[in-house]
Amino acid sequence: MASSPLFAPPYYAVIFTSLLAEHTKEYDETSNETYELAQGQPGFLGVESVRDAGGQGATISYWRTEDDVKNFRKIATHRHAQKRGREAFYERYEVRVAKVEKEYAWRRKEDGVGEYVRE
Amino acid sequence: MASSPLFAPPYYAVIFTSLLAEHTKEYDETSNETYELAQGQPGFLGVESVRDAGGQGATISYWRTEDDVKNFRKIATHRHAQKRGREAFYERYEVRVAKVEKEYAWRRKEDGVGEYVRE
Repeated sequence: MASSPLFAPPYYAVIFTSLLAEHTKEYDETSNETYELAQGQPGFLGVESVRDAGGQGATISYWRTEDDVKNFRKIATHRHAQKRGREAFYERYEVRVAKVEKEYAWRRKEDGVGEYVRE
Repeated sequence: MASSPLFAPPYYAVIFTSLLAEHTKEYDETSNETYELAQGQPGFLGVESVRDAGGQGATISYWRTEDDVKNFRKIATHRHAQKRGREAFYERYEVRVAKVEKEYAWRRKEDGVGEYVRE
């Protein structure tokens, strides 16, 4: 997972939750391609991804505007259509597009106490 | 992770991403208590949580309104203050409050093809 910076609201989050049918090398390759594709798109801010040993996953990508989300979705859908559809990898998935209104973060400091931060 | 139902936008998502300092039994107990606390609150719709072996986690809770989010935060903060603060468990965490505007889902069917659903 990336270092999870903050981005100054308002911005958009795409919450992608899923259960993998099978964790294959092809899945990892396709994930990496999608990540690289996203990185080159206008308005891409960052992404966080966690998957457990049981195949449950949550990937949250962050975008500056709703149009940036739409554009990326169009491009990614086209790319997936050219190759194997991403449906092949999953038992189920959900996509939620949400406008981030507030954010805060906490970081442990060397004294072990920690502090709230905004970046 | 729960079965990830859909909830009909607009509603609110609280995106909690974190890195555990150490995965302890006390952490699991506190997580369960927080989950039970949330379930009893007005406007609570559901929660999804994934954590990998490296301690990276993402928990997304869903709420009907922004006020429901605020009320739960107030109650949870008070509860944590009475006990050990949740800061003790983490190296870092981020909280993002976001308004879900759109949602869709895909489910594999018995024929392996799958379909888009709205619940």
